[in-house]
Amino acid sequence: MIGQDHIRRLTKVLYGAEIKGVTDIDLDRARAAAPEGAEVFDTPKALIASDHVQAVVICSWGPAHEEQLLDCIAAGKPVFCEKPMVTTEAAALKVIEAETAFGRRLVQVGFMRRFDGDYRRLKRVIDGGSLGAPLMYHSVHRNASVPEGLYTSDMPLNDTMVHDADISRWLLSDEVAAVEVRLPRRSGRGNDLRDPTIVLLHMTGGAIVDVEISVNVAYGYDIRGEVSCEMGIAALPNRPATVISDQHGIRQAIPEDWRERFIDAYDQEFREWIVAAGQGTATGPSAWDGYAATLVSDAALRAVASGEREAVAMIEKPALYSEPTAIAAE
Amino acid sequence: MIGQDHIRRLTKVLYGAEIKGVTDIDLDRARAAAPEGAEVFDTPKALIASDHVQAVVICSWGPAHEEQLLDCIAAGKPVFCEKPMVTTEAAALKVIEAETAFGRRLVQVGFMRRFDGDYRRLKRVIDGGSLGAPLMYHSVHRNASVPEGLYTSDMPLNDTMVHDADISRWLLSDEVAAVEVRLPRRSGRGNDLRDPTIVLLHMTGGAIVDVEISVNVAYGYDIRGEVSCEMGIAALPNRPATVISDQHGIRQAIPEDWRERFIDAYDQEFREWIVAAGQGTATGPSAWDGYAATLVSDAALRAVASGEREAVAMIEKPALYSEPTAIAAE
Amino acid sequence: MIGQDHIRRLTKVLYGAEIKGVTDIDLDRARAAAPEGAEVFDTPKALIASDHVQAVVICSWGPAHEEQLLDCIAAGKPVFCEKPMVTTEAAALKVIEAETAFGRRLVQVGFMRRFDGDYRRLKRVIDGGSLGAPLMYHSVHRNASVPEGLYTSDMPLNDTMVHDADISRWLLSDEVAAVEVRLPRRSGRGNDLRDPTIVLLHMTGGAIVDVEISVNVAYGYDIRGEVSCEMGIAALPNRPATVISDQHGIRQAIPEDWRERFIDAYDQEFREWIVAAGQGTATGPSAWDGYAATLVSDAALRAVASGEREAVAMIEKPALYSEPTAIAAE
Amino acid sequence: MIGQDHIRRLTKVLYGAEIKGVTDIDLDRARAAAPEGAEVFDTPKALIASDHVQAVVICSWGPAHEEQLLDCIAAGKPVFCEKPMVTTEAAALKVIEAETAFGRRLVQVGFMRRFDGDYRRLKRVIDGGSLGAPLMYHSVHRNASVPEGLYTSDMPLNDTMVHDADISRWLLSDEVAAVEVRLPRRSGRGNDLRDPTIVLLHMTGGAIVDVEISVNVAYGYDIRGEVSCEMGIAALPNRPATVISDQHGIRQAIPEDWRERFIDAYDQEFREWIVAAGQGTATGPSAWDGYAATLVSDAALRAVASGEREAVAMIEKPALYSEPTAIAAE
Repeated sequence: MIGQDHIRRLTKVLYGAEIKGVTDIDLDRARAAAPEGAEVFDTPKALIASDHVQAVVICSWGPAHEEQLLDCIAAGKPVFCEKPMVTTEAAALKVIEAETAFGRRLVQVGFMRRFDGDYRRLKRVIDGGSLGAPLMYHSVHRNASVPEGLYTSDMPLNDTMVHDADISRWLLSDEVAAVEVRLPRRSGRGNDLRDPTIVLLHMTGGAIVDVEISVNVAYGYDIRGEVSCEMGIAALPNRPATVISDQHGIRQAIPEDWRERFIDAYDQEFREWIVAAGQGTATGPSAWDGYAATLVSDAALRAVASGEREAVAMIEKPALYSEPTAIAAE
Repeated sequence: MIGQDHIRRLTKVLYGAEIKGVTDIDLDRARAAAPEGAEVFDTPKALIASDHVQAVVICSWGPAHEEQLLDCIAAGKPVFCEKPMVTTEAAALKVIEAETAFGRRLVQVGFMRRFDGDYRRLKRVIDGGSLGAPLMYHSVHRNASVPEGLYTSDMPLNDTMVHDADISRWLLSDEVAAVEVRLPRRSGRGNDLRDPTIVLLHMTGGAIVDVEISVNVAYGYDIRGEVSCEMGIAALPNRPATVISDQHGIRQAIPEDWRERFIDAYDQEFREWIVAAGQGTATGPSAWDGYAATLVSDAALRAVASGEREAVAMIEKPALYSEPTAIAAE
Repeated sequence: MIGQDHIRRLTKVLYGAEIKGVTDIDLDRARAAAPEGAEVFDTPKALIASDHVQAVVICSWGPAHEEQLLDCIAAGKPVFCEKPMVTTEAAALKVIEAETAFGRRLVQVGFMRRFDGDYRRLKRVIDGGSLGAPLMYHSVHRNASVPEGLYTSDMPLNDTMVHDADISRWLLSDEVAAVEVRLPRRSGRGNDLRDPTIVLLHMTGGAIVDVEISVNVAYGYDIRGEVSCEMGIAALPNRPATVISDQHGIRQAIPEDWRERFIDAYDQEFREWIVAAGQGTATGPSAWDGYAATLVSDAALRAVASGEREAVAMIEKPALYSEPTAIAAE
Repeated sequence: MIGQDHIRRLTKVLYGAEIKGVTDIDLDRARAAAPEGAEVFDTPKALIASDHVQAVVICSWGPAHEEQLLDCIAAGKPVFCEKPMVTTEAAALKVIEAETAFGRRLVQVGFMRRFDGDYRRLKRVIDGGSLGAPLMYHSVHRNASVPEGLYTSDMPLNDTMVHDADISRWLLSDEVAAVEVRLPRRSGRGNDLRDPTIVLLHMTGGAIVDVEISVNVAYGYDIRGEVSCEMGIAALPNRPATVISDQHGIRQAIPEDWRERFIDAYDQEFREWIVAAGQGTATGPSAWDGYAATLVSDAALRAVASGEREAVAMIEKPALYSEPTAIAAE
């Protein structure tokens, strides 16, 4: 489904890309989704190998990503991969190894929040330094509801919280050193779902991130973030909805879901990817970020079981991921 | 009704006053309202004359105010008078003449907004001067509803707008030189009522105040004010209601009516009056302000009939009203 | 300058257009601005006539627009024209006559606010009808500063206010019947400039729009709008800037200028134009809207001279402009 | 110092109390502070015993409170005691034992937040139930600065956090079952001070409170609170400061210190105490609440040392504290 949305984005919204080929486990679905002039490939391998394909977008399910990413790297082709990049630490390390051996970034992971205007402005304020060092970050993630049955008790940690962890690492320019999970009284709205959840991320530099996750809060999709610095506070604003005064008070609507909230971020994510891919490389969230997300998610699942503080042990950061990718100015 | 509320305020809320006597056209009502130990007088004249009475609060209907005020001034007793101070220009001039002849302020008029914390902070910002001179003031007055039948089409101008005119004069430290009235499309909610109304107050110093009056706007009692200065803007804030996020959005309740909105201002108004009256004088809105309100109200009624700009011609301001009253520090 | 910005937009940002030719009074400037592969034409006439050109963007100065628009219409080519569409009523009528004779909309005028997300959401709330009929609209237009010497005292009315007039007509789905202008005390920041300005737009349906224009207010580019309806209020929100708490209070930055405020609206304006032009027609603000802007601007200039209410007399609206243009869904 | 402020409050602001006697360790200071007509007692014991004294206000330092409270209870006199009620669990239990033996509430503890309008409205929303059960509470406590040298590293937990703990118990109508403390990277502004601090309060009913304490944040005194319920969120609003638009953005001032923030709450606290004391009893925060504060504070200090979850073990709640005190309506 998100694949079809990206096809629309690349063909109807954004400048600079052309869809040359499509594939899917269900080839009928691939044929239906393929825009005019696009070839339907039998397998991802065939698509990645095609001379007509310069760059690849992966929207398959998580366990399939490892092989597809390694094929793209082997072919030297830039690749955008929806999260999760991979599903195990071992797979993440293989992707990193292959990409560092190749010597240039090729992988971009779909953490779209980094392309959202609100988060970008927030980061500029933090990085600007006028408020001093960031010491605490309060990250709030609220879904109106989640699909009953399909959304299980581990998902607040390994599907939802990875966004908060990634944005925390990015906003604070830091890594997660350890994770704790605390479980408040359960919401009566979620049947057997473990919800809400509080996660404490202990950052390497000492800052603490407390993440409040509620996935069944009825009223809307509400994403909040507030960074407490030594000399001031910086926070995400209300969404720019019409200010209505009526019998419900003076009020602004809250987005219904992530599509409404992050639609511009998805566009911007691909806009920047197209530019980078056109230059044979990638930008934004990297394989390193995908690796970090996997480790934090694993640690969170251990922490919910143990009730203890679980360490996140990362390999030394390869030089490839230490510098921003050089993208030639347009 | 407001008289009973003031009795409660003076006996149960505020320090420093004692109710020694009460009167009313309906003496049974006076007897019912009188707190223990208070004498019920047959007439206002008798009450004002009593040696036990040091200061007077007038809550009778407008046309009765002139005589009662003149009696108080003749007796040299401080008097708090609910608005309108009087109902004709001639009456206002008589009160001013009597008070200036007496030589000390005795009259305080019930423009309670001047005692409201939000307005006082707004005035401090304007007077502070950091935003430059005030050039425009946008004053918004919205009632949820008005009593059908009792509230007539002149009342937005001579009952409601006088608050906006008084607060404009006070905020801008200026007088009204002329008035224009414009009538937008009528609200379908008000039967035959002329509503809403736009009033332009041309101030002597050149600033223009545009007043938006809606008396039947259903959703609440919403008082707004925004001063545009040469280098910035200062405005009344939202009321301090709980911020609720629910299916109606992120929102704050709006007061239901003027009692809820200005309850603290009424208390503060009397708190300061008690101190001034204890020193034999008055503070806050003066007979001069009551006179100005009468003239502006008259001009607005002429303007709605003529469609033209109607001048407000005031006498020269007596020295008595030029200086703030000296109230000894507590 | 805005022409170069549109070239960037059409070549680097948006999907669906290709720049085939460029011209300018200064041909050297045209050559410098032309993207690779674009022909530089000696005259607008030659460009418009070229078989390689399917649609035209006019960014020349106002007096040149009439002839260029008529040429485009004669050639049956969709044309985007920056405001002012034309500079006289007679010219506006000629454009309308030509386009109605042609029988299909070709002209789109550059009122970009109609493409801004905040205004669009505001209009949806009004049109939704839950607040009842709109009765008053308070439109505030503040510039941090204007170029000294270049920006003259008529420009708040014929350059700045046309945006407020257009957005008022659009938000209220109504026409301007008459205009009044009131001049508050002048700001000391503007030398001899007539600033600020209050404009009252009397709409045909009875609603009154009061426009507050300040073009030298130092602190930023601040665009506000509040619609008062029978049962509630709808207003533009604060811009989505980071919420910072520091020694200046709890605060959100205000845009510096119109580029920052409306950058997304410009993109969206052209995005929709490209789609419409690709179907041989136009969308959004029409020649009729350009005509209305000219009349309102003329009436405002008469009103500032006369001090009176100046009527806006429009011809009967041709059927061509009564219906939204049919644009095939993508 | 706070004693002098309470004398001012009782003599100049509030109705219903008269200061009959004063005492202090430094009798010269007592004489200077005593209002006209008030007796200066040599000892607290003498003051409490005096027939002229109906009710007592204790503003001495913490360790002196136990004896003075027990004397008041023995004399059957209502007593207002500034926090901390006492400094040890044993002392708290003695006070509770004496008061329950007496059989009527006499002790009111100075947790003034419960009398603040913002908190009261917040509690009404939670108790109203429309948002469902409260699951998490995010309580933020920020001081601009603390007195260097005098404010030590334990004080965020035993002096500052007790307010958050008390208001959490009150808002959620629950008790604290256990406490955890986490220490983020230290602020560079506080020399050797342990600041900021994160405290997790595990409530008996399962809700989790996360308290963010920063005592040196430079920009102001900023108290925030947000309750996450099953179906929505309720939060304290911005303070009602003038909305200023200038070069710093659109902004509202933040209070400088607790005096500015809670001045109305202190008045209201005493207003209600006077009524209750006049009826021979007490209202609001009780000896039970003082006992709970002592236990939570002790647990927090253990938790910062152990790094572990420290339990709060309370005795069974005496019936005396289970019901709201019956105060006759005025």
